[in-house]
Amino acid sequence: MPDPPDLIHDLASLAGANVGRDMHAFMAELYPICRSISGAGLRETLNAIGERIPLEISEVPTGTEVFDWTIPREWNVREAWVRGPDGEKVVDFCDSNLHVVSYSTPVHRKLSLEDLQEHLFSLPEHPEWIPYRTSYYREFWGFCLAHRQREALAAGTYEVFIDSTLEDGSLSYAECVLPGRSDEEILVSCHTCHPSTCNDNLSGVALVTFLASLLRELPLRYTYRFLFNPGGIGSIAWLSRNEERLERIRHGLVAVCVGDPGSLTYKRSRRENADVDRAALHVLERSGADHQVIDFSPYGYDERNFSSPAFDLPVGSLSRSTHTRYAEYHTSADDLDFVRPEFLADSLEKYLSIIEVLEQNRRYLSLSPKGEPQLGKRGLYAPMGGLQDRFASEVAMLWILNYADGHHDLLDVARKSRLEMADLHSAAVALCEHGLLEELG
Amino acid sequence: MPDPPDLIHDLASLAGANVGRDMHAFMAELYPICRSISGAGLRETLNAIGERIPLEISEVPTGTEVFDWTIPREWNVREAWVRGPDGEKVVDFCDSNLHVVSYSTPVHRKLSLEDLQEHLFSLPEHPEWIPYRTSYYREFWGFCLAHRQREALAAGTYEVFIDSTLEDGSLSYAECVLPGRSDEEILVSCHTCHPSTCNDNLSGVALVTFLASLLRELPLRYTYRFLFNPGGIGSIAWLSRNEERLERIRHGLVAVCVGDPGSLTYKRSRRENADVDRAALHVLERSGADHQVIDFSPYGYDERNFSSPAFDLPVGSLSRSTHTRYAEYHTSADDLDFVRPEFLADSLEKYLSIIEVLEQNRRYLSLSPKGEPQLGKRGLYAPMGGLQDRFASEVAMLWILNYADGHHDLLDVARKSRLEMADLHSAAVALCEHGLLEELG
Amino acid sequence: MPDPPDLIHDLASLAGANVGRDMHAFMAELYPICRSISGAGLRETLNAIGERIPLEISEVPTGTEVFDWTIPREWNVREAWVRGPDGEKVVDFCDSNLHVVSYSTPVHRKLSLEDLQEHLFSLPEHPEWIPYRTSYYREFWGFCLAHRQREALAAGTYEVFIDSTLEDGSLSYAECVLPGRSDEEILVSCHTCHPSTCNDNLSGVALVTFLASLLRELPLRYTYRFLFNPGGIGSIAWLSRNEERLERIRHGLVAVCVGDPGSLTYKRSRRENADVDRAALHVLERSGADHQVIDFSPYGYDERNFSSPAFDLPVGSLSRSTHTRYAEYHTSADDLDFVRPEFLADSLEKYLSIIEVLEQNRRYLSLSPKGEPQLGKRGLYAPMGGLQDRFASEVAMLWILNYADGHHDLLDVARKSRLEMADLHSAAVALCEHGLLEELG
Repeated sequence: MPDPPDLIHDLASLAGANVGRDMHAFMAELYPICRSISGAGLRETLNAIGERIPLEISEVPTGTEVFDWTIPREWNVREAWVRGPDGEKVVDFCDSNLHVVSYSTPVHRKLSLEDLQEHLFSLPEHPEWIPYRTSYYREFWGFCLAHRQREALAAGTYEVFIDSTLEDGSLSYAECVLPGRSDEEILVSCHTCHPSTCNDNLSGVALVTFLASLLRELPLRYTYRFLFNPGGIGSIAWLSRNEERLERIRHGLVAVCVGDPGSLTYKRSRRENADVDRAALHVLERSGADHQVIDFSPYGYDERNFSSPAFDLPVGSLSRSTHTRYAEYHTSADDLDFVRPEFLADSLEKYLSIIEVLEQNRRYLSLSPKGEPQLGKRGLYAPMGGLQDRFASEVAMLWILNYADGHHDLLDVARKSRLEMADLHSAAVALCEHGLLEELG
Repeated sequence: MPDPPDLIHDLASLAGANVGRDMHAFMAELYPICRSISGAGLRETLNAIGERIPLEISEVPTGTEVFDWTIPREWNVREAWVRGPDGEKVVDFCDSNLHVVSYSTPVHRKLSLEDLQEHLFSLPEHPEWIPYRTSYYREFWGFCLAHRQREALAAGTYEVFIDSTLEDGSLSYAECVLPGRSDEEILVSCHTCHPSTCNDNLSGVALVTFLASLLRELPLRYTYRFLFNPGGIGSIAWLSRNEERLERIRHGLVAVCVGDPGSLTYKRSRRENADVDRAALHVLERSGADHQVIDFSPYGYDERNFSSPAFDLPVGSLSRSTHTRYAEYHTSADDLDFVRPEFLADSLEKYLSIIEVLEQNRRYLSLSPKGEPQLGKRGLYAPMGGLQDRFASEVAMLWILNYADGHHDLLDVARKSRLEMADLHSAAVALCEHGLLEELG
Repeated sequence: MPDPPDLIHDLASLAGANVGRDMHAFMAELYPICRSISGAGLRETLNAIGERIPLEISEVPTGTEVFDWTIPREWNVREAWVRGPDGEKVVDFCDSNLHVVSYSTPVHRKLSLEDLQEHLFSLPEHPEWIPYRTSYYREFWGFCLAHRQREALAAGTYEVFIDSTLEDGSLSYAECVLPGRSDEEILVSCHTCHPSTCNDNLSGVALVTFLASLLRELPLRYTYRFLFNPGGIGSIAWLSRNEERLERIRHGLVAVCVGDPGSLTYKRSRRENADVDRAALHVLERSGADHQVIDFSPYGYDERNFSSPAFDLPVGSLSRSTHTRYAEYHTSADDLDFVRPEFLADSLEKYLSIIEVLEQNRRYLSLSPKGEPQLGKRGLYAPMGGLQDRFASEVAMLWILNYADGHHDLLDVARKSRLEMADLHSAAVALCEHGLLEELG
């Protein structure tokens, strides 16, 4: 029976062919839904995920104090439009859910174009794109529209209508937990609050969903916790409700912006050189693919909360283009064409590879630490001496045995030896079977 | 009321226009005085400084043991000349106080040119310059002169006359202390013993005098101790009389050679990465100016004593050309033309900037360390969400809050974030005012 | 009376002229002997070494358990050949002791060329060279031959004869110990088991023999242990019999492949920055010679056992070409022409230099740590002040005094100051004589 981690590797290969298209199709399914940090659209999204993986949904009531924050009222919107002086709808929520500033208060009134302008948002530098704007924590209403469209607005009286509600309700987040042999956890999270924008972050939602779906087939070492939460307040709510279990989290990844054509970008955890950082760098360096590694910064996505000083969780983030590096960010141009199946599949494969490395990475103690053990009498060594080149498996065994001192893990050995983790893992398994090595707890 | 450190920054700008000329004028006033490691010229110099800043002058009597050294007899010289075979004065102390080897014993005798040569010093490679020589710890008399002049000396009998005294007296040093809120000290020292040489070190004397004069206007965090001492023995005497207070010294700078046209050179403290080193590097790197950073070495100026192994004080040195890098060093060519107002002003501005950074650099503890605090409800955050670029002040607050863990100071945050210290300081002050941050002691 | 370490330096120079030729001549004497990891050839070799330096030979009986290994039966071979279909000898042990696979079991039989092929070894890529093969731990017989010769073998019946014995006996190793003032030891080892191959490792045998011979003339600080052992099992046997004395080993070097034309290669100890590593790097960097430094790896030569995790001895290895970098490795082309006197002499000089650095490297405590001590009153400092350039000996004294804090050794000071170890050592001796410095234990 093969060892779980190799199965992960196989999954990565097997998944490759169609998984990108499947992920993209799932995003297309979720794309039209109007999500925000609370409300019906968020719940509909979680339910759709729940059809693919086992999901436990939590509701945190409005008014609940979560650390320094308070869960806001729940926002829902049914209809929203602006009618021009001639009575024609010039902006309509039906066309794009980006048209309404998220958390807009209800409004129905007439006003001059001049007064309306203070409630309009557009992007002069990208006149065809609708921007995405929110006003979660200040009461406000507004519309977003293409700048070209805004410039065409004639003077006169406009009628604005937003049929929204801001009422006591709850904020929703969802978890999929895959129990492993150990109750030490790997956390993979994605923010699930954005409306019709794809790279940020339906791509992350699709990736985490497919990752969970693939891994649930496997006997795993770690317990996996996949978290789908509204960005910011959602991770804070989750942290506040799970404070006592945070110490179980050994490694974490925030999955965002994983479908665009940019090269891979790994953002280190606040700890700078946590195991997840070392694993991600190992995977990216060995992949041969263009990539960049950036240091932790306390903004970006939910790593800002996971890495707040009281928690300082070892959570990194693997993205393609990061939020500051692509013009389409937070606009209607971040659509289903901007993300592509091959990039989604490539990102998924890298996540699987990082997880494989984390599953394989162990610390060992040599049970024969005095001099090199005699591998030959155990059939682990070529009988003929004098050859210039040793077999890779022999070399892997020598490296592992020499560094099986409790102070080095397999990633250390991989770095020193330049060998592959998979080869080192196989060698370690063989050495354990022959009683030469003991895994440390 | 603005925070003291910003005042420092303002002073640096305000001082800029005329301060260089004023510093140069002060040097011109001190230039003719014949200084040595003791004696009337040194006292006259300290008195001139004392007219500009409050100064306490200490006298250490001849014969006092100061660690491994003994305070030497006090040297004074009134007249000194060499008359040629024709009775004309060929060398005269009236023309330059470099003509007499410092600490020359009294002499009046006739001798042949050949015998005289053993008491003459000149620089064949710079035939127009008079070298500067001393003989503090061996009884000797001698004259320094231009090599061109020496080569023109005709054979015959010469008359030499040095009307000097070497008598019991005392060695003088002076301190200007500006008390701050804390009794932790910043030490800024300069050697004050050289006769008519300007870059080494009337430039340092002027810089420290003006620095003290500017800072005394301000409410300061640290207590500042400005030390004017004869080089070597003077710093040893000061150390031996202040041993019990050395632990108060948190940061220190030795001000030397700050008026020449060379680029700025920072010599690290023996500790290699003390706060003063980090502050100086921050200032130099952010200044955009050419500069170099060199490691500590146990020679140079008084840092050799401040950094002796029993004390190992965190004392660096910011110079322009260092003593080994300019030909004019210890010659008559190190004169009032060699140093220039604009370089003096630039050096002063850098000293002020380093001090500003040290004043601003603090360690904080977040009082809301679980998740990111909600800045918006405190009016510290832009209400509209979705923007790609955050305001600098928001970014600064996020950085500070995340690293307000007691292990990082603002200089650490400046390095990680690449933000300006002044912006970080302002953000920290705002966060303290809103109860989100506590300064650590 | 000069200090021992300077004598070492003198020896290095004096030895230079003829020592390379003498080393080569010694190798030529040992070249024809058929060595293996046990047996008469190994003993004959040890006896030849014992004629040059005092040697204690140990015999470890067959069957003795040495850690994870068991001492094998002793192998000896008297005659071995292959006769072709025409009765002519086509391979004869008399021509080269590489022709017989080491530890071949006795055999005398006739067999077809086809069956014979399974017992033949050759190198298609180097058709003129005889490979060197062993089968220590699997019962086997075989012949090695030039590939050109092998291809010329006609079909037919062959007669093979190996008059060897595999009988209870013992494995031999030898030690030369030179007692020093301290019982802390420097270990220099070489594997002594290879038959007629020169760079690997008659060169190492010659180097260690000559090193011991030169050093035995000197009063030394360290006790030196020169170890001549069969590779692998020999070092394991030695370790198992000397486990209690291993903690005395302060520094170690494995001498291998020191006679070829390649540039010098230093392989770091497993500790990565042990004193022997720092000393070797100091010597190589200051030598100006091309060289490379490689990290520890748990294969190569006996460092794999010295550095096994239970021992982790600070043992490096200075070679020229390493075993993986020259085509002649483990073939008949690694002969007396491949190694040259000038490279042997150069390697010996580097070993002596490293040992000199280790002998000179000390940790000191300043007895006058408050301020710089007054060197002048002790005659250690130029009396005339004001010079731009200090004398090297003065600079060396200042560096040593400043870092005589118990935390830095002379190698640290050499690195910081870029001064020569010999100059620092002389300065330290002078400072000790004047009561300014105390050597730490």
